[in-house]
Amino acid sequence: MLDPTHWFSEVAADDGSAFSLKIREKLHEEQTPFQFIEIYATEGFGNLMVIDGCTMLSSRDNFLYHEMMSHPALFTHPAPRRVCIIGGGDCGTLREVLKHPGVESAVQIDIDEGVTRLAERYFPELTAANHDPRAQLLFEDGIRWIREAPTGSLDLIIVDSTDPVGPALGLFSQDFYAECLRALDTHGILVQQSESPLYHLRILQEMHGAMRAAGFADTQTLSFPQPIYPSGWWSATLAGKAVTLADFRVADAECKPFETEYYNAGIHRAALAQPEFVRRGLAAIAETRD
Amino acid sequence: MLDPTHWFSEVAADDGSAFSLKIREKLHEEQTPFQFIEIYATEGFGNLMVIDGCTMLSSRDNFLYHEMMSHPALFTHPAPRRVCIIGGGDCGTLREVLKHPGVESAVQIDIDEGVTRLAERYFPELTAANHDPRAQLLFEDGIRWIREAPTGSLDLIIVDSTDPVGPALGLFSQDFYAECLRALDTHGILVQQSESPLYHLRILQEMHGAMRAAGFADTQTLSFPQPIYPSGWWSATLAGKAVTLADFRVADAECKPFETEYYNAGIHRAALAQPEFVRRGLAAIAETRD
Repeated sequence: MLDPTHWFSEVAADDGSAFSLKIREKLHEEQTPFQFIEIYATEGFGNLMVIDGCTMLSSRDNFLYHEMMSHPALFTHPAPRRVCIIGGGDCGTLREVLKHPGVESAVQIDIDEGVTRLAERYFPELTAANHDPRAQLLFEDGIRWIREAPTGSLDLIIVDSTDPVGPALGLFSQDFYAECLRALDTHGILVQQSESPLYHLRILQEMHGAMRAAGFADTQTLSFPQPIYPSGWWSATLAGKAVTLADFRVADAECKPFETEYYNAGIHRAALAQPEFVRRGLAAIAETRD
Repeated sequence: MLDPTHWFSEVAADDGSAFSLKIREKLHEEQTPFQFIEIYATEGFGNLMVIDGCTMLSSRDNFLYHEMMSHPALFTHPAPRRVCIIGGGDCGTLREVLKHPGVESAVQIDIDEGVTRLAERYFPELTAANHDPRAQLLFEDGIRWIREAPTGSLDLIIVDSTDPVGPALGLFSQDFYAECLRALDTHGILVQQSESPLYHLRILQEMHGAMRAAGFADTQTLSFPQPIYPSGWWSATLAGKAVTLADFRVADAECKPFETEYYNAGIHRAALAQPEFVRRGLAAIAETRD
């Protein structure tokens, strides 16, 4: 039925589900030193980037992920000026970060330059802000970069990585979070993509536990739709050094000086709400910790 | 790759996407006088009901849909006593409605008795409340039932139907909404499943337009995740005869005397938030109307 010459499918094996997009043609494939990248033209989702068999982004629905990885954290920090993005080689998160006039520097550190070069060619709208003088693109190991970052030198760290397997695994560890905490200034915030609330509640529980154990004062998961990712439901988890993550600069979000497709102040507040089963799952962790 | 002997797939042809569930075995198939129903045992989602090739519900994720089709409307109405469900033959919405102690009668009117008989066998948890003395199950045409309902005899009408094609098409029309308005009492609310915000914005626009044209004072779309439905992102639209749908009985929702898996007061508030592209899409309709 879903003939593989006309459909790209990603199987979520543990959950017995799959999501597929109808393909017009394969535009590119490339084995970089780090991963295997494919680019397809799809029938209904624009261009699609696939890394090691997993859908990474489509032209049509990447706005959900990129807006929710950036704006909630930026409007939670009282005055974010120095931002770094670990991963994020497609530059979509960078573009959203640079929409904030108060941001003075945004450094993107992706280990694989291939992702950025292909984004420039196949997702040019995402790389449109790359020549902003506030932007710096580095292609190196993000974990080492954070380890070498001066203490208190960042306001916001965005971990825009692949799933917690292979090269990205170190980005989901207490050691890494402790280095992030050190590199962040007083009101600093870490935000990390945290998989599907429905499929990966255990990853969420472990992430909250590891962030708190590393010394973050508050943690908070935001959820949002993401059709091309397993279950169509995704999340980002914030860890705050000092601030309370349930509050944000509502008035600033309400009169933000830029356009979005998904994010607004109401959506920010909405994303903070916890479904009953998530609330119970995270409360269990909190009790274990106390 | 997705061998059809091991996977059930539903294709969303207009959007070039598909969602698939891995099948353990087909448990049943049946052509009723109205539709073709299949039941599968899946690897990761429990049992699955498919009607005319479209996924209807799975054991694992139906809680999202059923809770969001019922509790937000029930906690918005000041004191809902008389509820009817048009469609909803799997009885999952009925079960949620009957969790509210203030509900005195809940009539479910599904044209196809076959759906209910199969739900009793393959989704017994959903039909557990069917013998509640407040419940009445009718198997007849819901449009005619509403037309014959006494004026002002209902507090809440829940339209839990299939997509707006074939037999369900009449449930998405201004004429039907006008009959609902008449059958509803002063504070009455109509709630209808309203497809995917991402895939079906036009259906949402038309529904708001038709509900307002039929005389409803307020309309409001709620969105929520629904992994097995196209795009994984779904919605329900409320139409209110008099009340403001953005407010609800928050204190009652916060101390609801029953368990849920998804719904709570925070999720209710969250579901009311409109993504930017939806807000703009619905504002365009409002301007056309004024």
